[in-house]
Amino acid sequence: MPVVDATGFEPVDLIPSSENPFFVTHYYEDLAVGDVFETSGYTIQKDEIVDFAEQFDPQPFHVDEEAAKDSMFGELVASGLHTLCLSVRLFVTEIVQGEADVANMGGLGMDNLEWHEPVRPDDTLTLRVEVLEKTPSESREDRGYVEFRRSVTVDETEVMSITSVNIVQREDAANAE
Amino acid sequence: MPVVDATGFEPVDLIPSSENPFFVTHYYEDLAVGDVFETSGYTIQKDEIVDFAEQFDPQPFHVDEEAAKDSMFGELVASGLHTLCLSVRLFVTEIVQGEADVANMGGLGMDNLEWHEPVRPDDTLTLRVEVLEKTPSESREDRGYVEFRRSVTVDETEVMSITSVNIVQREDAANAE
Repeated sequence: MPVVDATGFEPVDLIPSSENPFFVTHYYEDLAVGDVFETSGYTIQKDEIVDFAEQFDPQPFHVDEEAAKDSMFGELVASGLHTLCLSVRLFVTEIVQGEADVANMGGLGMDNLEWHEPVRPDDTLTLRVEVLEKTPSESREDRGYVEFRRSVTVDETEVMSITSVNIVQREDAANAE
Repeated sequence: MPVVDATGFEPVDLIPSSENPFFVTHYYEDLAVGDVFETSGYTIQKDEIVDFAEQFDPQPFHVDEEAAKDSMFGELVASGLHTLCLSVRLFVTEIVQGEADVANMGGLGMDNLEWHEPVRPDDTLTLRVEVLEKTPSESREDRGYVEFRRSVTVDETEVMSITSVNIVQREDAANAE
């Protein structure tokens, strides 16, 4: 039975790629530079902004409405780390385990993380992901590296962007298992 | 009264810089390239690895011990995002609001995020932060930009590193308030 945690999320029912009849798995070979994936919107609530920040980024402008008025932001805003975490959740649940069903083996790193605009309570975040570059592994035949640009928007204004490099399995390797 | 949340953290009692007699606030002028700050260790538990991943990064190798055995990692490992979040918590609670008491106005962005080694249950994470570069704001006299290199180690092996740019208040501006 799902347990509702502090942020209001229910744990996701995992759908292993091989058992999911609805999606076609995207291996390294199946992703092309320029491919774009978009997610549905996720609306962030004030309570979860405060809950998250109390755990991981307890600065006054993320946890205290009164103190936030005296900050550079003038009001309570979400931790940028929270926006990043929500973008990863959307990436995993709606792209890696959803529409694109990417044979993701893990993350290698991220770069160019920028927070362009503050995120406020009741903002609805949408993630857009584009394949920027593909690089075959030189040392391991079972995988390649895929660079994505991930962009989070609120009302069509970009609030955060980041690039990531993910390790993606090759189809040959999967079939040989 | 503190509420223990799903990760076992207790919300932090905030100590606004101006009311804290124990630390000397570090304004932009007070931070020097080469300054180093280190935190205590934080030991990550299996349950919180799974709880975090169910919320933000629900991939099999972060939430399911059996499935993790078939992954590239061979065992359950923490989401790299979780390691990043814990490093930010250590940065905020022990450096920005602790030893260094940095007059941080907010984060501008992060770069060069790399996960060098997996983080496993019961690993103890320590954060080391070094001031890499300082750049005065050209448009606003009340602030400057400070680039930090943040490094997370387990048993003296670096498991994650990232650079960040924070917006830090100038002392003149603080005194003029």
